[in-house]
Amino acid sequence: MAGAFDPAAITLATLGENALVARLVCGLPLGADVLVGPGDDCAVIGRPRDKTWMLLKTDCVIERVHFAAGEDLRRVGWKALCRSISDVAAMGGEPAHALITIAVARTEKAARLDALYAGLRKAARRFSVSIVGGETARSEGPLFVNVALTGTVARGRCVLRSGGKPGDALYVTGRLGGSLGGKHLDFIPRLDAARWLAAKFRPRAMMDLSDGLAADLPRLADASRCGFELWEEKIPRTRGCTVAQALNDGEDYELLFAIAAGGAASLEASWRKQFPKLPLTRIGVLSRRSTINHQSSTRHGFDHFA
Amino acid sequence: MAGAFDPAAITLATLGENALVARLVCGLPLGADVLVGPGDDCAVIGRPRDKTWMLLKTDCVIERVHFAAGEDLRRVGWKALCRSISDVAAMGGEPAHALITIAVARTEKAARLDALYAGLRKAARRFSVSIVGGETARSEGPLFVNVALTGTVARGRCVLRSGGKPGDALYVTGRLGGSLGGKHLDFIPRLDAARWLAAKFRPRAMMDLSDGLAADLPRLADASRCGFELWEEKIPRTRGCTVAQALNDGEDYELLFAIAAGGAASLEASWRKQFPKLPLTRIGVLSRRSTINHQSSTRHGFDHFA
Repeated sequence: MAGAFDPAAITLATLGENALVARLVCGLPLGADVLVGPGDDCAVIGRPRDKTWMLLKTDCVIERVHFAAGEDLRRVGWKALCRSISDVAAMGGEPAHALITIAVARTEKAARLDALYAGLRKAARRFSVSIVGGETARSEGPLFVNVALTGTVARGRCVLRSGGKPGDALYVTGRLGGSLGGKHLDFIPRLDAARWLAAKFRPRAMMDLSDGLAADLPRLADASRCGFELWEEKIPRTRGCTVAQALNDGEDYELLFAIAAGGAASLEASWRKQFPKLPLTRIGVLSRRSTINHQSSTRHGFDHFA
Repeated sequence: MAGAFDPAAITLATLGENALVARLVCGLPLGADVLVGPGDDCAVIGRPRDKTWMLLKTDCVIERVHFAAGEDLRRVGWKALCRSISDVAAMGGEPAHALITIAVARTEKAARLDALYAGLRKAARRFSVSIVGGETARSEGPLFVNVALTGTVARGRCVLRSGGKPGDALYVTGRLGGSLGGKHLDFIPRLDAARWLAAKFRPRAMMDLSDGLAADLPRLADASRCGFELWEEKIPRTRGCTVAQALNDGEDYELLFAIAAGGAASLEASWRKQFPKLPLTRIGVLSRRSTINHQSSTRHGFDHFA
C-alpha cells in the first residue's frame, strides 16, 4: 500500500537518537536504590541518606564511527576509557572500576590489541581506575570497544543535569570545535576542574559535551525544565573554527554547567587563580520555559542515527 | 623474509582466547579494594572486613556469532542479560544493576530494538535487575549488545573458581549439550540453585558453563591449582546428544562446582528435595597437580578465536 504509514517500518535514521533513547528507556524496571536512572551522564545508585553514592556508566567506541580504521590503537584505548571518565567527572564524582569488552576479527593482529590495552592502562593509571575485568569476543564487524565504569560521589557533591534554574549563568570550560583534528583522541577529562567546581561552587547542573553544544545544551536545559539564551558570539572556539563548528563538531569533552548568577563573579575570580591555563567562559543563561526556542538554529549537534 | 618468525604478525586466531586474555590482563592496574580481578566469573570489589562485596561483570552477544541474523530479538535480549546473571549466580551473588550498550545500523527497524528491549526488560523483572542506563551507537557492523552488570554477595557466601582442593567432588546441574537447539536463547540462569548451594553447602569452587565443560572444567581446575578426573560416561546429556556434544557445544549456562567429598551424600539428598526437577550429577573429582592430563581429549570446548 504505497503511501500508507507503517509504524513497523520506522528506521533508527528516521527516528533519531533522542527519540530512540526515550522510546527504549520508557518504563524500565528500576529498584528503590536507583536515585537517577537513564538520562543523565551516569546512573546514581544509593540511598538518600548514604554518605557516598555509586555512579555507573557504559560507553563505546567503534571503528569508522569514533576512530579511523588505521588509527593508532593506543590513542583509541585512551579515548575509550577517558570518555566514561569524563561522564563521571561531570557528576562531580571519582572513577573507580572499569570493565572492557572488545569485539574483534579473528584475523586482527595481537599486537594491535596490545596497543589498545596500552592506551587503556595509561588512562587507568593516570586517573586511578582499576581495570577489573573484560570480555573479548569474535566479530565479523568493525573493531568495537565498550567501557563500563563505576565511580563514587559524595552525596553533597553529586551534580545532575536537572538542577538548573531560570536565571542561572551558563559556562563552558576550554574551547569548542575542531576536535577531529586530534583532540578527540587525546583529550584530558576535566576531572580536576569538575572536582573543584563540585566542592567549591556546587553547580546546579552540569554535563560533559560529547555531541556538541548545539545538541547537549538543549539536553541540560530540558532536564532542568528551562529554556536557554545562548550568546553565540561568546562561545570559546578552537583556533580556526567557526561558530557552527564550535556548536556542532562534538567530542569536545569539556564541561557545561549552570550556577546561580549571584556566584558568577566569585567563580570567575577563583577560577583564574586555580586554572590559569584553562579558559572558563560564560556563554549564556538559563531562562523560563516560556522563552524556549527549541527550533532555533542551534539545535543540531551530533545525532548518532541522523 | 619468508619463514622468519615475526611476533608482530601473530593473529588472534593463532594465539587463541586463553592466551590472548592472559596477555591483555597481565599487570593491569588494580586498586587495594579489588579482591578478585580478571579471571573469575565476576570481579569482586570490597574490603575483606566488609559484610557485602560488589560483583562486576561485562559480556556481549553479537549477531552471527551468538545469535542468527534473523533471530527473534526478544529472545536475544533475554539471553544478553541472562548470560551475565548466570555469572553473578556462579559467584553466589545477586544481580543488581545493568547497563546496556547497543551498536546498530541506522537502517535497522526501531521495532526490532523495541523487541530487544522487551527481552531485556522481561529478564530484568524476572531476576530483580534495574536497567539503569545505556548507550546506543551507530555501527556498520552486525548488531552488538553489551551488558555490564553489578551484583552483591555476602562475604561468607562468595564462591570463587579458585578454592577447589584435590579430592573434592565435581558436580554439574542440568543436562549438557545441544544448546543451539534453542536453550542458548531461553535458558534460566541457575540463580536459585546457586543461592541455595552457597548458603547451605558452600561449594569450594563454582563457575557457570558457557564455553562447554571441556573448556571450562580445566579453567576451574587451573584456578584451583588442581588437576581433575572426569567420568565422561556420567556426564548428563541433553536427549539425543553425544558425549562430545555435551563436552564441546557450550552455552549450557549450568553450574559446575566442587565440594568437599565428605559433604556429597548430604548434598545429593538435600538437592533432590529442594530441586526435584533439576538433575544434579557427580561427574568426577579434583585431583593433585601431578595427575593432571591437560592434553587430554577433553580440552577443547569453544574458543572464540580458534
